[in-house]
Amino acid sequence: MIDFQTHPERYRHWRLEVDGAVATLVLSVAEDGGLEPGYKLKLNSYDLGVDIELNDAIQRLRFEHPQVGAVVVTSDMDRVFCSGANIPMLAQSSHAHKVNFCKFTNETRNAMEDASAHSGQLYLCLINGTAAGGGYELALAAEHIMLIDDGSSAVSLPEVPLLAVLPGTGGLTRVVDKRRVRRDRADVFSTVTEGIKGRRAVEWNLVDELVPRSRLAEVARERAEQFAARTDRPAGGQGIALTPLERTVTEDEITYSTVTVRLDRDAAVAHLTVHAPAAPPPRGIDAIVAAGAGYWPLALARELEDAILHLRFNEPELGTWVVRTSGTADTVAAADQALLDHADHWLVREIILYLKRTLKRLDVTSRSLVTLVEPGSCFAGTLLELVLAADRTYMLDGTFEGSNLEAPSVRATGMNFGPLPMANGLTRLQTRFLGDAAAVEEVRQVMGRELDAETAEDLGLVTFIPDDIDWEDEVRIAIEERASFSSDALTGMEANLRFAGPETMETKIFGRLSAWQNWIFQRPNATGDAGALKLFGTGRQADYERKRV
Amino acid sequence: MIDFQTHPERYRHWRLEVDGAVATLVLSVAEDGGLEPGYKLKLNSYDLGVDIELNDAIQRLRFEHPQVGAVVVTSDMDRVFCSGANIPMLAQSSHAHKVNFCKFTNETRNAMEDASAHSGQLYLCLINGTAAGGGYELALAAEHIMLIDDGSSAVSLPEVPLLAVLPGTGGLTRVVDKRRVRRDRADVFSTVTEGIKGRRAVEWNLVDELVPRSRLAEVARERAEQFAARTDRPAGGQGIALTPLERTVTEDEITYSTVTVRLDRDAAVAHLTVHAPAAPPPRGIDAIVAAGAGYWPLALARELEDAILHLRFNEPELGTWVVRTSGTADTVAAADQALLDHADHWLVREIILYLKRTLKRLDVTSRSLVTLVEPGSCFAGTLLELVLAADRTYMLDGTFEGSNLEAPSVRATGMNFGPLPMANGLTRLQTRFLGDAAAVEEVRQVMGRELDAETAEDLGLVTFIPDDIDWEDEVRIAIEERASFSSDALTGMEANLRFAGPETMETKIFGRLSAWQNWIFQRPNATGDAGALKLFGTGRQADYERKRV
Repeated sequence: MIDFQTHPERYRHWRLEVDGAVATLVLSVAEDGGLEPGYKLKLNSYDLGVDIELNDAIQRLRFEHPQVGAVVVTSDMDRVFCSGANIPMLAQSSHAHKVNFCKFTNETRNAMEDASAHSGQLYLCLINGTAAGGGYELALAAEHIMLIDDGSSAVSLPEVPLLAVLPGTGGLTRVVDKRRVRRDRADVFSTVTEGIKGRRAVEWNLVDELVPRSRLAEVARERAEQFAARTDRPAGGQGIALTPLERTVTEDEITYSTVTVRLDRDAAVAHLTVHAPAAPPPRGIDAIVAAGAGYWPLALARELEDAILHLRFNEPELGTWVVRTSGTADTVAAADQALLDHADHWLVREIILYLKRTLKRLDVTSRSLVTLVEPGSCFAGTLLELVLAADRTYMLDGTFEGSNLEAPSVRATGMNFGPLPMANGLTRLQTRFLGDAAAVEEVRQVMGRELDAETAEDLGLVTFIPDDIDWEDEVRIAIEERASFSSDALTGMEANLRFAGPETMETKIFGRLSAWQNWIFQRPNATGDAGALKLFGTGRQADYERKRV
Repeated sequence: MIDFQTHPERYRHWRLEVDGAVATLVLSVAEDGGLEPGYKLKLNSYDLGVDIELNDAIQRLRFEHPQVGAVVVTSDMDRVFCSGANIPMLAQSSHAHKVNFCKFTNETRNAMEDASAHSGQLYLCLINGTAAGGGYELALAAEHIMLIDDGSSAVSLPEVPLLAVLPGTGGLTRVVDKRRVRRDRADVFSTVTEGIKGRRAVEWNLVDELVPRSRLAEVARERAEQFAARTDRPAGGQGIALTPLERTVTEDEITYSTVTVRLDRDAAVAHLTVHAPAAPPPRGIDAIVAAGAGYWPLALARELEDAILHLRFNEPELGTWVVRTSGTADTVAAADQALLDHADHWLVREIILYLKRTLKRLDVTSRSLVTLVEPGSCFAGTLLELVLAADRTYMLDGTFEGSNLEAPSVRATGMNFGPLPMANGLTRLQTRFLGDAAAVEEVRQVMGRELDAETAEDLGLVTFIPDDIDWEDEVRIAIEERASFSSDALTGMEANLRFAGPETMETKIFGRLSAWQNWIFQRPNATGDAGALKLFGTGRQADYERKRV
């Protein structure tokens, strides 16, 4: 089982150093610290385990270190910053692992950019030696890139010429869309194995500045302090400890404080249930700060994220996730209101951003998402986003015979109209009603009200509203049918239908770039027995099919 | 050799009927008329040959029938409109053919939308029976979809449930982005094999209206006339005959009136040379009309298009296209000026739109494009777009020793600043200088001037400017190196680097949708021996790998 939970005290590959308003993340990969046997993490190359630590560090910096306004990513290796994803690891990995690994590393890079853009915690990168492939892609996620000017250290994307794959962790996209490197220069850069260094790297905008070896630490500190000076984070703020998750994993169930996951392996289904808090969570900012990691919205963001990652990596055969909620919608709505009331407080802002990122993980998860709105559920506000993120939703029209639970309702709150956008920059409601602002406005007009099945259907919020007589058959057939379809066709279909409307750099990375990379990961030129990824390091030349497809 | 040239008199699968301002394209597929042996084109299903005729018809309608303001696409088969791409054809096709076929059919659908949007020739679709898969995708390219209301005829996208592939000819994208079908309904629609008919099809916006069987012809005519009434095309305009291309194909060379292609199979290179007209083409509108298909810009659009399609399908191993021009830039600039002067004339508008579409084909061609700006070349205006479309450009700085040809120059004209946008909605200059309007403006300031190598480099128009001493080696090494890379990695890399900036429905179809489809075309669930596409029609059930990737 791959575990996404860790703690700086257990890091093997990163050192997290905090000094006033500046933090430094030092990459120092333990060669023998690979997640799987079979490869050595040489030259600061990484596998999933290295990135799990980075992801953890990014989250902790946000919550545990409110005073940090700038983060410098660098390495402690002489002449090497980072060599990118470990090639023997990729070569021995299944297709599914490669794809999952790339998705997670992409999400980690996006989390860095999200912190720079929205958290007032700006990332800088000090490239203190060679930055190759994923190493340079890591730097690309920073807002300011410093490159050592030692006459030899270069940045490079050697994937195409060396490995017959793409720089798929955002590299190609960020070079032309973020760094705005001219496309012909980007073409040259992405085919020059040795990369580009010195003045040309600056001229082409591959890096922002050169730093002589003798002044590395000094310039990095200076620059970081300049960036940190722009932050609106509280210099004297008290951090929130991200305490270990309350999590119990058994053969068929994973239990958190706010989420339960039941695994039905025969049906190829994971049943996720999100639980509303038993009592309304604290509403005052001091009480929220005091509740810390136990505050329900934060616990939800962390636990749902962990469940998503766990299921993605450890339960690939559970192709459909059936999502339910249980509890009182009023407490969910009260929690939403507290978040909205204190949205300017650094901690609440972080919690909202975390919820946003967790929900975005759902959008790019290659599983069919079905929400069931049943009596006893609480799909309000933040939890209504689960309905809006789903591929389809069934809502019971009325009650179950013989049950004393009331007919279910759904409810919109202010959280559905802005704070939790998708990667395409629109809210899930805007994406759902693409170009139809009136339909979004109609939902806003009934914000705060309990909407029964017919109303929810009329408003376009749910897909089907079977009654008690039809419910069981209709839901069962839908889920069985889903399991009978090709897993790959569903993945491709969902990746297209979920992202109507505009594209952003982020959606381009998950859509355009990743889809091409996934295709290439299937091509003999890369992963066949004579493919470049397979033969790398053996001294044998790859034998390419010349035909262009 | 697959030939993309045809004529209505030779059509086997379509009938083109013109009656005043309304044309009708009747699909009537000849079962035994497949392009390759091994499959029968049953139930109005199509292969590349059917689409070559459709593409031809769309072009002719624009040029030969200026009075046509609306085109109705329908079929003459009872109870069947179109069954989409022929499955046995797909099942027996190579991966490369499937991908190329989808790209071409997508371009044909885009040409219909381009005519509706920019030519005043609006497409309607009369679905007179079942429209399945590619059949419904064909309808989706129309601006108005009429569905027979006979209690049984449905529209459907059964690819996912039946074949384990995607509706990849724009279907998924157009459903949510163009028709704005709600994503959960789109999910249902794309998984219901039998499709959706009648009122629900209208309610979900899958079609625009239902028509009873008894009134099919009447309503189609009525609607078409309403649409035709909106056109700005000349009711009494004289059409231009798209006469057969002047083309000679030999083993190593293809010669047109404006383009020469030399095939270097050993080097895996196609050398394309575009020739400027010997004398300035006519500048007055009457003379342009009189020149007809012989008018240089129109001949160029047609011939370059044919060369692109020929090389794509018939020469897949020539992975690099080296593009040159020869002739006098003044005549090219004069032709550009004439186009700009008469841009409002229907014929000139069509010629500009044709040039735009041909250049767009270049952008999505999976070949490395290298332009060489040498003495004797004429990269001005429309031909400068070849430089801007290229993955990289080498321009000689100065002259070749011993040659009396002058040092080369490039030149911008008004054609570089709007009339020839890429699929992303930006000009190639805007894409090249993404977000840097000042850089585009700098080029505009020197419009009409001859720009030498140093100036062109300073302006960011060319990649490298070697001098006589370095030229041969530098160019040779670049081309040899390109041929040594993995064809697939180059395809993926170019598809990402060429499309910086915004995405449109069109780029989403070629990027997001097609990339996922290409991936799926490689997956055992679809194309393996027990895959659904392979087993379709055998009565055997596909055996799916359940794992989600």
